[in-house]
Amino acid sequence: MSALPKTGVELAAAIRAGELSATEATQATLTRIEQHNPGLGAFTDITAERALREAAEVDRRRARGSEPGPLAGVPYAVKNLYDIEGMTTLAGSKINRDDPPAREDATLISRLKQAGAILCGGLNMGEYAYDFTGENAHVGPSRNPHNPAHMTGGSSGGSGAAVGANLVPLALGSDTNGSIRVPASLCGIFGLKPTFGRLSRAGSFAFCPSLDHLGPLARSVADLAASYDAMQGPDIRDPVCQKRLPETTAEQLGQGADGLRIAVAGGYFRQQGTPQAFAAVERVARTLGVDTEAELPEAGRARAAAYLITNAESSNLHLDRLRARAADYDPDVRDRMLAGALLPADWYLQAQRFRRWYQHEVLRVFRRHDVLIAPATPMTAPPIGQRTMTLEGQEMLVRPHLGLYTQPISFIGLPVVVVPVQTPGELPIGVQIIAAPWREEHALRVAAQLEAEGFTAPEAALD
Amino acid sequence: MSALPKTGVELAAAIRAGELSATEATQATLTRIEQHNPGLGAFTDITAERALREAAEVDRRRARGSEPGPLAGVPYAVKNLYDIEGMTTLAGSKINRDDPPAREDATLISRLKQAGAILCGGLNMGEYAYDFTGENAHVGPSRNPHNPAHMTGGSSGGSGAAVGANLVPLALGSDTNGSIRVPASLCGIFGLKPTFGRLSRAGSFAFCPSLDHLGPLARSVADLAASYDAMQGPDIRDPVCQKRLPETTAEQLGQGADGLRIAVAGGYFRQQGTPQAFAAVERVARTLGVDTEAELPEAGRARAAAYLITNAESSNLHLDRLRARAADYDPDVRDRMLAGALLPADWYLQAQRFRRWYQHEVLRVFRRHDVLIAPATPMTAPPIGQRTMTLEGQEMLVRPHLGLYTQPISFIGLPVVVVPVQTPGELPIGVQIIAAPWREEHALRVAAQLEAEGFTAPEAALD
Repeated sequence: MSALPKTGVELAAAIRAGELSATEATQATLTRIEQHNPGLGAFTDITAERALREAAEVDRRRARGSEPGPLAGVPYAVKNLYDIEGMTTLAGSKINRDDPPAREDATLISRLKQAGAILCGGLNMGEYAYDFTGENAHVGPSRNPHNPAHMTGGSSGGSGAAVGANLVPLALGSDTNGSIRVPASLCGIFGLKPTFGRLSRAGSFAFCPSLDHLGPLARSVADLAASYDAMQGPDIRDPVCQKRLPETTAEQLGQGADGLRIAVAGGYFRQQGTPQAFAAVERVARTLGVDTEAELPEAGRARAAAYLITNAESSNLHLDRLRARAADYDPDVRDRMLAGALLPADWYLQAQRFRRWYQHEVLRVFRRHDVLIAPATPMTAPPIGQRTMTLEGQEMLVRPHLGLYTQPISFIGLPVVVVPVQTPGELPIGVQIIAAPWREEHALRVAAQLEAEGFTAPEAALD
Repeated sequence: MSALPKTGVELAAAIRAGELSATEATQATLTRIEQHNPGLGAFTDITAERALREAAEVDRRRARGSEPGPLAGVPYAVKNLYDIEGMTTLAGSKINRDDPPAREDATLISRLKQAGAILCGGLNMGEYAYDFTGENAHVGPSRNPHNPAHMTGGSSGGSGAAVGANLVPLALGSDTNGSIRVPASLCGIFGLKPTFGRLSRAGSFAFCPSLDHLGPLARSVADLAASYDAMQGPDIRDPVCQKRLPETTAEQLGQGADGLRIAVAGGYFRQQGTPQAFAAVERVARTLGVDTEAELPEAGRARAAAYLITNAESSNLHLDRLRARAADYDPDVRDRMLAGALLPADWYLQAQRFRRWYQHEVLRVFRRHDVLIAPATPMTAPPIGQRTMTLEGQEMLVRPHLGLYTQPISFIGLPVVVVPVQTPGELPIGVQIIAAPWREEHALRVAAQLEAEGFTAPEAALD
């Protein structure tokens, strides 16, 4: 079969129109995954049987004249910290291999299924999501589709690789400090980290309950919006998932940036990055005609506090496992977890108190602006295995530095869309489009306008 | 002037009927305070001028034919951790004496003022509320009105003394682990610790944000209900104060225990107390015709977790002060605070996780029962200064042991009314009437029935 339509919503439209069947689309997708996954390290599990069963169900629904759903026949995959019924939830670890299979799907998987989407597998990730590189000590790294010697970014590295290589048009990831936005940036795709509490986390393996978010990565803004719309809504299984009525963002994309007050994040967000990161922001700002700047106060402290909360909460969740099976952890993760176990409660509580202050201050910024623009990562994808880099004359550790610009944003749960920026001859890099809490549609509208003006996901030249 | 009506609502009725003026009532109250406070150590500040001004305003309102409020002319006082406009909020400390005066009243004071009540002063308390005895290292102990050589209990010790001695019919206290219920029990009065999040904490000096509650102490259930009704309702100044519509509990008291499924708390709540504590529960149960028992699982762990959270959060709030002015703390409080500063974040987080589990388990108990009965304290008021006691052959520390039965209840924010039980020749002791979250009216109805059947606040023989 020839190439599938470029985006998930186009594919769904073709399937709903009877131009091709969900089964054909799924078979083509599985073939592409089989062919390219070995070089990418994106999938840790391919659920071919389930995918074909779900596709057949979509085709049956359509044949009967029933509504096959807004994502009818759209293949997707999930970071392997999502529960898939009948499979063990690995969360990138060796230790979890001994766990029993999940008894039911994660809520977001159930909702995508309801919308007609086809689950094709579980995706590689940094161990227990404590990662920004996409490397995995147990199964090897996920590899950047634009240069397999380079990182995907992480921890949703398999999600970045799978969508960046167009093995699937859509993947789900998780983002605690940047784990959706960093791989979206490094793999040249779109990513949405919604407002904290917006999408149910039920049936996912927690990393840091105060900061964990789930969300989609995709090759188009329309796919982000359509999948996000399908997944929205309160969930009794997740008490943090707020009882807000879903809003259909997909229908609002056409409004673009009209009427939105947009500013570029200054100060902290203009420092410690490579020229590529700042040039990408500059191109986006120029395209949108933005020349104002806004400052998020104490963004550096916000990042420090995000680290403390991550460290303390993840260690608390892992302490029993650390006691029993320390040797089975990725050594880097183990060290961070053990350090977290020694943090005083006072530091944790102070970080949470600071968080409330910082949120209050940042909400004041959003009285004057609807959307802020900032780099997603300080650099394009570094080579796999690179530990340090020199920036502004200083030697930096690569891994933590990848989260420089994402951590102060997720720390207070702001919704963000990452938009890819491509320069010929260079690896892609992303820009964060940041909105006020619960205003995902603002970030999606700006991203849609940018996409229309040429900021699209670059094709990967595989093989 | 002869004795005022016994309860606040009777006094308000007399004032509204023109049988006496608010000014007369206030003057009589101030005279009684001046006369008896030196022997009780209840008040740290007497706001005579403000009280007379507020009384005059009530009388003016009445003279004009305006509604003077449901608590018209009712004198009350507040634990000195409530902000009183123009006064420094001491919170029982020496250090806070250097703070500037409060710029506005605490929310609950504003609401009582709105209802016509008359603020007569600030009340003694254990330093920074970290106390169960009512002793204060800086200004001396509050003294039990039924025997001034004995403790009031704490930390709302002045509130217990002032109401127990009938200097005022109503006082406000705070309760983190038992600080309303312990002095209510030891002073032979009624006390209400409402559901966590029910009454606004805005304008009060925090001790442990996860566990702090505010509430009234009074000589009658009608006064508890009337003051609670006047104080209920959401408050934009306190984000924890939930947006629930107030319900008028005062009108429901007449229903008594009719139709309520009541049980005695077993296991943990039948151990480590004196015979007086268990006899009091037995008398209450017999009066209500209750012979079923219910068990709160892991109540002992709940108490331990309450300690950890208290320790960690209070230390976090105090650390800067501890660094700067350690010598100005009550030595006992200082030691607990310093110990709290060394707790690992893991212990704190584990205690919070246990709290969610325990809440879930206890809510299951409330599917079968509307109200639980338990002792309020393990013993009647010990002599002031007593550090240890022997119980069931074991030597116990008095101070922490006073919170044995209150801590596992406030830990998950359940509403409780303490009802006084009097035995001739003995000091009084209280019983906790515990309801499901947000069902204060159940506890108040049972308390009202017990009051009608003779469980009343004993008169103190002052001087």
